[in-house]
Amino acid sequence: MAVYTDVTADDLNEFLAGYELGELRSYKGIAEGVENSNFLLHTGAGSFILTLYEKRVAEKDLPFFLALMEHLAARGITCPQPVKNKQGGMLGKIAGRPAAIVTFLDGLWIRRPNAGHCAAVGEALAGLHLAGKDFTQKRSNALSLESWRPLYEHAGVRGDSIRPGLCNEIVKELDVLEKNWPRGLPEGVIHADLFPDNVFFLGDRLSGLIDFYFACTDTLAFDVAICLNAWCFEPDHSYNVTKSRALLKAYAKARALSGEERAALPVLARGAAMRFLLTRLVDWLAVPDGALVKPKDPLEYFRKLRFHQSVKSVNDYGISA
Amino acid sequence: MAVYTDVTADDLNEFLAGYELGELRSYKGIAEGVENSNFLLHTGAGSFILTLYEKRVAEKDLPFFLALMEHLAARGITCPQPVKNKQGGMLGKIAGRPAAIVTFLDGLWIRRPNAGHCAAVGEALAGLHLAGKDFTQKRSNALSLESWRPLYEHAGVRGDSIRPGLCNEIVKELDVLEKNWPRGLPEGVIHADLFPDNVFFLGDRLSGLIDFYFACTDTLAFDVAICLNAWCFEPDHSYNVTKSRALLKAYAKARALSGEERAALPVLARGAAMRFLLTRLVDWLAVPDGALVKPKDPLEYFRKLRFHQSVKSVNDYGISA
Repeated sequence: MAVYTDVTADDLNEFLAGYELGELRSYKGIAEGVENSNFLLHTGAGSFILTLYEKRVAEKDLPFFLALMEHLAARGITCPQPVKNKQGGMLGKIAGRPAAIVTFLDGLWIRRPNAGHCAAVGEALAGLHLAGKDFTQKRSNALSLESWRPLYEHAGVRGDSIRPGLCNEIVKELDVLEKNWPRGLPEGVIHADLFPDNVFFLGDRLSGLIDFYFACTDTLAFDVAICLNAWCFEPDHSYNVTKSRALLKAYAKARALSGEERAALPVLARGAAMRFLLTRLVDWLAVPDGALVKPKDPLEYFRKLRFHQSVKSVNDYGISA
Repeated sequence: MAVYTDVTADDLNEFLAGYELGELRSYKGIAEGVENSNFLLHTGAGSFILTLYEKRVAEKDLPFFLALMEHLAARGITCPQPVKNKQGGMLGKIAGRPAAIVTFLDGLWIRRPNAGHCAAVGEALAGLHLAGKDFTQKRSNALSLESWRPLYEHAGVRGDSIRPGLCNEIVKELDVLEKNWPRGLPEGVIHADLFPDNVFFLGDRLSGLIDFYFACTDTLAFDVAICLNAWCFEPDHSYNVTKSRALLKAYAKARALSGEERAALPVLARGAAMRFLLTRLVDWLAVPDGALVKPKDPLEYFRKLRFHQSVKSVNDYGISA
């Protein structure tokens, strides 16, 4: 939950004078997103989200994210659409922070997804990958394989304070991943963070995708592997193969997975678990003792990693090799 | 900023089935209020606020607050109106918490109020006091004079860790307040927490009052004194007598202040400063070292108290005795 920077009515009115959105009627800081400050605006023109980009999002990357949302929306993906100001720009400044306004999307995120939701996500992810095909801008994935060992060396070496032996397990796994990471699989725009809180539903219908601030150019099947981690585990960390099969089948129906991609899924899923394990570990260890806000538990991803390590082939994810 | 309890879409849909508000289109946790969890809902019937009452609000007091809002709204005060469910009730339960839905109010709260805003608040406060006249329910003020010494003894005795000598100053002031507290002044419903974040404006027009969860039956002029503390100090803690005069004149135009009330204002203002000094001190000392969330600075109210101690008569607040 996140409002790191408060905004005064004067500042906001001044900012909105650059747009054609009518009179400001209300704005509320909302408890969504962990990287930025978000406000829900009601104006004469409707409902919008104002995002102030905090220091964890690199300002140089913002044009990529905004152009991507515009590109995807133009291709029928329901995602927030950046609103252009009177000069045609999508990025401004408020309270000293880079800021943008995007359209508000109706929909609820599902706290306890079922197999039907997983199928909808698989289909939407494939749709996003296809719609991103002719997006010409590139952004390398700052949280892919190459970043994991430095992340571990930065903070993970204190991991044994969370669980004895964790460091050794991470190092062994990094060795495996670096040796076996698949190369040459189809690449393109990936969302890279398509967790349940970034997918909206109205009833059983998927109504929108949000939060493109980890989007980048990377292996498409890695995005699928991230979704398996995000959507297919039960609260007790057991893997639900029915949800997994539903997600993968729906994805493959819209965008077929090649034999190489299917064969690579187990190692990609291990990598995805490692990525979230490491960033959660960094966040966890950065918090002072006794803090009121506890970051997400890194060990959740250690348990997910354990599952993927036990996988023999893609069959264990519910589809044939 | 506050979302202490998350709500699932399933739980919320089930809760809303008891209301006639149409289909749920979205809900967002909002960063407003410090005592409760608040969500902004968009439904087929419009925008609403869902509040989950957390443990700092006593469940037995909720019918008073909700009935008061209904009473005031019926008398033309723009405040959130509790929405009745199909059984005619205003209070339900969600995620194990007592919960209510109120209407959404347009408007912005003013981070840097000017004298015009202060006048509008004075007028609105008098309007609230008049509209509350025939409200028959009573609730004693749990944060009035009688509570301050126990509050100090509970937590304030560690006050010297914040500022050397603070404890001695508080005890001396409590002696003065207990000796000189005015009795027999007009009583009625007071808001008791009418800070800038609880007052909405659209342009220069006051558009609504919110957050009635400290409302109670107490001395009306004490509510005025709370507003002087909340609205008339500059960020450097200097007292702005232009704002003060504007607030008091506008109040008195709608509801005349008697000679006794005017004479009592300085001691009431000292009491109001003490009330917020003490509750902030308790909150401050309850937070563990190194916590990410810092509560509001109690010493702000120590500085305000110092100003009120220096006041010779109500003339120093900008009106004649």
